[in-house]
Amino acid sequence: MTSMITVRAETLLRWAITVLEKAGASHPAAVATAEALVDANQRGLDSHGVTQLHFYLPGLKAGTMRGAAEPTVETDLPAAAVVDGHHGLGPYVARFAMDLCCSKARSAGAAVVGVRNSTHFGAASCVSEQAAYQNCIGIVVSNSDPGMGPPGALGPILGTNPLAVAAPFRREQPVSLDIATSVAAQSKVVLAAREGRAIPTGWAIGPDGEPTTDPASALAGAMLPMAGHKGFGLAVIIDILAGCLTGSALSPEISNDPAHPAQQRTGHLLIAIAVDRFVTAEHYGSRLERLAHTVHTAPRAPGTDRFLLPGELEASEARQRATEGIPLASASASLLAEIGATHGVPFPP
Amino acid sequence: MTSMITVRAETLLRWAITVLEKAGASHPAAVATAEALVDANQRGLDSHGVTQLHFYLPGLKAGTMRGAAEPTVETDLPAAAVVDGHHGLGPYVARFAMDLCCSKARSAGAAVVGVRNSTHFGAASCVSEQAAYQNCIGIVVSNSDPGMGPPGALGPILGTNPLAVAAPFRREQPVSLDIATSVAAQSKVVLAAREGRAIPTGWAIGPDGEPTTDPASALAGAMLPMAGHKGFGLAVIIDILAGCLTGSALSPEISNDPAHPAQQRTGHLLIAIAVDRFVTAEHYGSRLERLAHTVHTAPRAPGTDRFLLPGELEASEARQRATEGIPLASASASLLAEIGATHGVPFPP
Repeated sequence: MTSMITVRAETLLRWAITVLEKAGASHPAAVATAEALVDANQRGLDSHGVTQLHFYLPGLKAGTMRGAAEPTVETDLPAAAVVDGHHGLGPYVARFAMDLCCSKARSAGAAVVGVRNSTHFGAASCVSEQAAYQNCIGIVVSNSDPGMGPPGALGPILGTNPLAVAAPFRREQPVSLDIATSVAAQSKVVLAAREGRAIPTGWAIGPDGEPTTDPASALAGAMLPMAGHKGFGLAVIIDILAGCLTGSALSPEISNDPAHPAQQRTGHLLIAIAVDRFVTAEHYGSRLERLAHTVHTAPRAPGTDRFLLPGELEASEARQRATEGIPLASASASLLAEIGATHGVPFPP
Repeated sequence: MTSMITVRAETLLRWAITVLEKAGASHPAAVATAEALVDANQRGLDSHGVTQLHFYLPGLKAGTMRGAAEPTVETDLPAAAVVDGHHGLGPYVARFAMDLCCSKARSAGAAVVGVRNSTHFGAASCVSEQAAYQNCIGIVVSNSDPGMGPPGALGPILGTNPLAVAAPFRREQPVSLDIATSVAAQSKVVLAAREGRAIPTGWAIGPDGEPTTDPASALAGAMLPMAGHKGFGLAVIIDILAGCLTGSALSPEISNDPAHPAQQRTGHLLIAIAVDRFVTAEHYGSRLERLAHTVHTAPRAPGTDRFLLPGELEASEARQRATEGIPLASASASLLAEIGATHGVPFPP
């Protein structure tokens, strides 16, 4: 275990906003982006936390990511829209698009919004949960730079294209599923490489198509799809939804190399379903409590942990980190210190 | 290998329609149901083919499944609806609901239709592909009787709740993904039990929560979720979408035991996205061809098969079975012969 430092979420948030503004982001884009990244840290999704600035800042500096861009609505129908992100910060673009999607869902019952010319938007669950807090079920997919290939592939073919779904539940925390279509998110391998840890068997293949536990070899090779052909098929479908249907790039065309910034043209597809246009809030709530009860009380063999709804682990982590602060591994802290020095915003603040 | 008989799709279709009508189904419900089951056989999805009549007919006889029921629209918004299936045949109910969903999507851009009080609808891809043939991307989820539990579960907790997505592609065949949230569909275990075959390791646990390759033990135990916690989480989400949001049963409440017919109250959720309201048909088609080319020509290690889009294997099987007929294992043929004898419609015809 590497040594850790601990930072409060509010402190991390203010620091990240300042860094993004110094790098040319508008205030609202900096706030939306920093909030998304710190929210991921808060829920324990550190691979999608503030260390993502390592990928965002070179693009802002090179102008391939446009920190002052405002998203525009290109196609506007009662239950559908296409939003152009104009290469702005992904979390800001996605927040705009999901607000539009929920607004349409409230009047039409449901809506679908495609997003073109966006960039990496952080954890997909930040966007889906935004819908859940507006009493909509939010479904979010995005393509991403190529990182996944099936067994036998000599290098990555598609992105690890994530899928997230969040459903309103109790006030404090939606039911929230956020999965890469690979066995694990590639950013977990980036983090393992940064922290000098091996990765589990079955996560990835090296550039020769053979299984590997070395994160460097995995990054030169490909992540394996989850559930074999099912995960690969789902990644294809997500490229159709986020790429073909929106006018954005396909995952094999997306670049996310901080050493060589390029326009990403990442695509997202967002769906919002207004719960109370389908059933009463009372009915929905009592049925979901029933489902939670069934999962929580299901008979299990001795030594087996209680079964959980998706998002419960992250909600528990968020409660703990709200009181104890966000722990950062020393490699992550060093990266933030380096970023801080470059932008004249010392870290830790 | 058990011995096989071969039947032409048209012959199987006429036989199944007649059986369903003799069992009390209305003509349109019998046609929609038989078409869905034979379509599954045609594409090689034999576990969702005409042998499903074994589950449908006892319900029709007992009146828990209502073969003459007509679905009604209970909630009607520009981009959303709730359909009540009134316990009719699932494939007929789902076809009605998906037609409604596509019609709304054409005018509003996209639509979501919830279905309550339905029954097993066959292969989910029959419903999603129906949207694709109307130039919509179709997304379909359904809950189902409990059959899946995570490692350590003493029996099933949730259904193997399927997800299907179909996207228009070339004229002859959509891109079509159809996956159970379990490692494998439970109906494949039913088929294996019927045909006396062992199941692969990793598919299921016995009633004691231990891994098993015996289909009988697996049916008394539970299927394992695909990709571990991801598949279980997705099944929870599908129960929220198909159950909580529609006013239907939750998967733990659904019964599908032919020996004890009961009202299923299965729920589905259907989404249709009108492709040409998002991008031009030309743009979409050329980008999807590009994606297909990338997958098909991806570099691979010697001995590795060409990578495929979801649905390509099934389309190839359908072309072969269109000329050569549908092969039925002897255990399946015996089951159909028994059904035929009971209903006065001999099989093979």
